[in-house]
Amino acid sequence: MVSLRPYLFQRSVEEKKMDFSLAQQLTLKNDSKVVLMILDGLGGIPGGPDGKTELEAASTPNLDTLAREGICGLHQPIGTGITPGSGPAHLAVFGYDPLKYEVGRGVLEALGVNFDLKDGDVAARGNFCTVDSNGFITDRRAGRIPTTKNAELCEILRTVKVPGVELFVEPIKEHRLLLVLRGEGLNGAVEETDPQAAGKKPLEPVALDPAAEKTAKAVKQFIAGAAEVLSSASPANMLTLRGFARKPDWPPLRNVWGVTTAAIAAYPMYKGVAKLVGMDVLDTGTELEDEFDTLVERWNDYDFFYFHVKPTDSAGEDGDYDRKVSIIERVDKQIPRLMKLGPGALIVTGDHSTPSVMKAHSWHPVPAFIWSKICRPDAVQVFGERACVAGALGPRLPAIDLIPLAMANAGRLEKFGA
Amino acid sequence: MVSLRPYLFQRSVEEKKMDFSLAQQLTLKNDSKVVLMILDGLGGIPGGPDGKTELEAASTPNLDTLAREGICGLHQPIGTGITPGSGPAHLAVFGYDPLKYEVGRGVLEALGVNFDLKDGDVAARGNFCTVDSNGFITDRRAGRIPTTKNAELCEILRTVKVPGVELFVEPIKEHRLLLVLRGEGLNGAVEETDPQAAGKKPLEPVALDPAAEKTAKAVKQFIAGAAEVLSSASPANMLTLRGFARKPDWPPLRNVWGVTTAAIAAYPMYKGVAKLVGMDVLDTGTELEDEFDTLVERWNDYDFFYFHVKPTDSAGEDGDYDRKVSIIERVDKQIPRLMKLGPGALIVTGDHSTPSVMKAHSWHPVPAFIWSKICRPDAVQVFGERACVAGALGPRLPAIDLIPLAMANAGRLEKFGA
Repeated sequence: MVSLRPYLFQRSVEEKKMDFSLAQQLTLKNDSKVVLMILDGLGGIPGGPDGKTELEAASTPNLDTLAREGICGLHQPIGTGITPGSGPAHLAVFGYDPLKYEVGRGVLEALGVNFDLKDGDVAARGNFCTVDSNGFITDRRAGRIPTTKNAELCEILRTVKVPGVELFVEPIKEHRLLLVLRGEGLNGAVEETDPQAAGKKPLEPVALDPAAEKTAKAVKQFIAGAAEVLSSASPANMLTLRGFARKPDWPPLRNVWGVTTAAIAAYPMYKGVAKLVGMDVLDTGTELEDEFDTLVERWNDYDFFYFHVKPTDSAGEDGDYDRKVSIIERVDKQIPRLMKLGPGALIVTGDHSTPSVMKAHSWHPVPAFIWSKICRPDAVQVFGERACVAGALGPRLPAIDLIPLAMANAGRLEKFGA
Repeated sequence: MVSLRPYLFQRSVEEKKMDFSLAQQLTLKNDSKVVLMILDGLGGIPGGPDGKTELEAASTPNLDTLAREGICGLHQPIGTGITPGSGPAHLAVFGYDPLKYEVGRGVLEALGVNFDLKDGDVAARGNFCTVDSNGFITDRRAGRIPTTKNAELCEILRTVKVPGVELFVEPIKEHRLLLVLRGEGLNGAVEETDPQAAGKKPLEPVALDPAAEKTAKAVKQFIAGAAEVLSSASPANMLTLRGFARKPDWPPLRNVWGVTTAAIAAYPMYKGVAKLVGMDVLDTGTELEDEFDTLVERWNDYDFFYFHVKPTDSAGEDGDYDRKVSIIERVDKQIPRLMKLGPGALIVTGDHSTPSVMKAHSWHPVPAFIWSKICRPDAVQVFGERACVAGALGPRLPAIDLIPLAMANAGRLEKFGA
């Protein structure tokens, strides 16, 4: 990854904005609302007793009705055969090509702990590690110290000061931490310091671009201070840093499509991704039913709602086929509440597949439908992976096509050309 | 074609390598093996007594089982409506976009006669022709002289010497021959000398790029010498040259995907294409059953096998529907031997279609399936062109997507982003 970063970082924001110029030309305002519902990790592979996927096995009369009235298919977030991480997968469904709109690891970690990144901040992911008396790494993860210990050490790291740069240190989980640098003229093009193997010293934080010299110098000063204050904190007596990245400066979704945008998500990571594309993040509860309450309550306040359901993915990651089935069924029960609100267009899909058989994200295309009163229904009768293969969206729709199609179905795009 | 060549030659290898940067970032090593089986010219159109294609008519219980357990579809090597030659078709299935990874005609001819091209060699395709006493071409193909006569004339051409450049001349078929130049600083950007019409003189071999001046000069000297030694060899008393091209310097498939690679192919052309992407070419016999023997014998030696069956295409080119059916059936009988080896992922497809009705390559999409234990099967029950239309690969998969998907199915690609 590292070798590509200078190239990616140097591409101008102007160039990136070009992607949305057509959309921006064609947007129309109206009262029709768009809902993008993402059931995280929705897609599966056959795993149940009768060779069905979780979605195929779930009893989903409401989703089936919408799939029958709508257009169905499967989307690919990144490309054929590519298993997406949560960040890139979400960006793709939001319509931002994740191979162009790259999010650095540090920024993703900041989102995950709900750190409020400001414009110009540079974030990095850190790992506590163990070094011997000569400075050679003996354990890259410091024996996976408990998260409570991590929090204590982060308190100590907060005493490290670097002139001209404000520093933030936040514990993540076990040996992982977040470092954020705030100040003028910072840049994420800094080489990682993790040598990726024990028996080596941590690397220097070299600037990969002249514009990152100031940042590299500040990081070097922080590391020197960290080494000093951690010296007696065995086994976590040192740290490495990687994934330096500036908070991206992308065109917000509301500007691309001319809609007011809100996110309803229970988990920090997804609130964070929504903020990256400029959405307002609404307060909600921890259960998916709470999120539907929020949707009903805030319906009149926004044009576009991103609605995120996390536990489908968690169940898949845990290899819990039955739990994933039951969560899909819980979502289905809430669908009538949503439909009573009268959305102009509704997308129901996942950000990627997380088959419980694999206990991990996968590359398998993700089932999706778009419902509106003016869509052209296809022959698909139920919402399931194999049924969707025959749908009008096709079996490999690029995920970035979902939002444009929903906007069209909501009557929010005018004719191109005369 | 000519007008594009300078541009194509000037594009740097570095730029082309960018195509594979994502793959190279994500490769993982494991013990799972990948087999790419190409039944040359596999695709057909209805031609049998009951309106079936050759593949639909063939009894293929083993391939049908794999298609049922796998994901099916049809691929397009180059693009919609484009009939591929064997070289570009193979490159596409190997994952190299043939519109970017262009192989010059001269290089293809060298592969076809099994000439062992070295790095830096420039190859060209030649045609013996007939010129009148004023040097005007009266027959661009010298009356299609017999191949035996061609071989005699090539012996004579080998007496032509050019200072500083080693020359190789090989007969192909009828009036066609291969010229290879070997030496320092050669370049393929040389204009063809065939005026493409009788009644004109052969053209000068002009350099299309300053870097090709040396090559153009050497070619000019060779042509002068050839004209002299051929002067009494009527009707083949002259030659024209075209398709000047240097052996390409592409990222080998093993570097792109982190796999050791071997080719099992009985025909020179396909061994040559495999060498272009850096594969080891294994010794094998002339029958397709011999090739399966080789696969079994060498199974433990490589991660990735390209397995080529030629006679499906030859039968199609000959317009022999029944023979094409029977060759497909012979392949099917060998499939259990392959499956006993335990491949992690298997692709079975063609490089292009060669309908026996047409006696030629065609643009029709090529039936394909990918089988693995963690693929998501679709509803396709048999391996055939029309059945595959409903498959999860879709009816027009870009051929370059096949290998990435097989690598994913073999567990050889890690997640993109977090």
